[in-house]
Amino acid sequence: MREWNEEIKNRVEWIKGILKDAGAKGIVIGMSSGKDSNTVAALSKLATDNVLGVVMPCDSVETDKQDALRVAEQLGIKTVEVNLKDSYSALSQSLKEGMGGPLSLMASANIKPRLRMTTLYAVAQERGYLVAGTDNLSEAVMGYFTKWGDGSFDFCPISDLTATEVVELGKELGIPKEIIEKAPSAGLWEGQTDEGEMGITYKEIDTFIRLGIAKPDNIEKIRKAYHKNAHKRQLPYSYGTIESPVLATL
Amino acid sequence: MREWNEEIKNRVEWIKGILKDAGAKGIVIGMSSGKDSNTVAALSKLATDNVLGVVMPCDSVETDKQDALRVAEQLGIKTVEVNLKDSYSALSQSLKEGMGGPLSLMASANIKPRLRMTTLYAVAQERGYLVAGTDNLSEAVMGYFTKWGDGSFDFCPISDLTATEVVELGKELGIPKEIIEKAPSAGLWEGQTDEGEMGITYKEIDTFIRLGIAKPDNIEKIRKAYHKNAHKRQLPYSYGTIESPVLATL
Repeated sequence: MREWNEEIKNRVEWIKGILKDAGAKGIVIGMSSGKDSNTVAALSKLATDNVLGVVMPCDSVETDKQDALRVAEQLGIKTVEVNLKDSYSALSQSLKEGMGGPLSLMASANIKPRLRMTTLYAVAQERGYLVAGTDNLSEAVMGYFTKWGDGSFDFCPISDLTATEVVELGKELGIPKEIIEKAPSAGLWEGQTDEGEMGITYKEIDTFIRLGIAKPDNIEKIRKAYHKNAHKRQLPYSYGTIESPVLATL
Repeated sequence: MREWNEEIKNRVEWIKGILKDAGAKGIVIGMSSGKDSNTVAALSKLATDNVLGVVMPCDSVETDKQDALRVAEQLGIKTVEVNLKDSYSALSQSLKEGMGGPLSLMASANIKPRLRMTTLYAVAQERGYLVAGTDNLSEAVMGYFTKWGDGSFDFCPISDLTATEVVELGKELGIPKEIIEKAPSAGLWEGQTDEGEMGITYKEIDTFIRLGIAKPDNIEKIRKAYHKNAHKRQLPYSYGTIESPVLATL
């Protein structure tokens, strides 16, 4: 077990420094009913009183929204709801017309995290806030996030923690048990779970990340996902460089 | 004047290598009627026959669309149209309801490039293509692009070229004069021009980037924009690191 009290203190100071350097007035977070967004929200609230949770129902189940709102209230975080159902439908329809047929399940599902990112940045710009990210280390290793969707934010205070460690930290921060222990879902479609989609459990992934121990076929799954999704963890490929002696004088 | 023939050859090989490494079948590009997207489209067409231009009218003027389609045809590039008017309206409306009032001009305008990115990635995933970026060096230096909007793509073959140099390269690639010489616009609102918004011309920016020469107040404008927008040119702030001895074995 890690020294979570010390870790919390350090992470909160880190967030404060980022807000100060950016001249930002607060933090916007996309709130789901999962452990990651709620843990990030709790850390953010310790760094500033100006935390705004944005609940963005699209086609997810109503209980998720109620859970998200309840925890936000418990953490003392204000929330707004931006319903994405109509914009998601409209964009899907335009894509269907343009492409001459409906999109595949995955292409269609990945629209949602990108609409959420777009929404969070509109809210953030309006308020002069920064957007908090909620992706954890296990997701980063597996590349289990949407490029330029939930993978895009201004800062993330849990990016070095495995899913298992986020659970520990979340408990320490007082996030309710039922939120902490809910099966993780990226909210891509109803009934979707991360583990079901990846074909491996977070426990297996995290035991490998921290101890290097896993069954050979699981190591192979992790290895493939890690390399295949390397492009999601780095800047896009750019030809040449922008560095120059002139720019260095600025 | 640079050796554009050699540069074109090198850039085309670079694109081919990226497609091959990714196992991608082709390239998707958001087509406007400006020099950048058309230059990137021409380079892409030299790298692969599978180039798909996506025209995404939102509230832009109809002549832009016609210009974009005409040049695409001349370059031998297939196009599809995905109209963003309805999804933009729907998202703006939901944000207005959630925030209790309409968004500011800039927060509202930045939704558009993010919807375009979302659209391009849906098309790309459907086809197994990569998304080409069209931001040039002058825009990168000034931070004159939308974070996670036009600033987000898989690869960009003109990222090291100033706006002035893209004009030279575009001419070499046979892009029509009226496209090349059109006042650059990010397509954020009708009548918007980059230079009007930045308060400095690309000629002034580019003379500084390449020769270090500019009037003191222009150097100050460039300096401020360069530093203020540094966060747009790098990965988001992440706490800690994902590097570990275990991951290094993968």
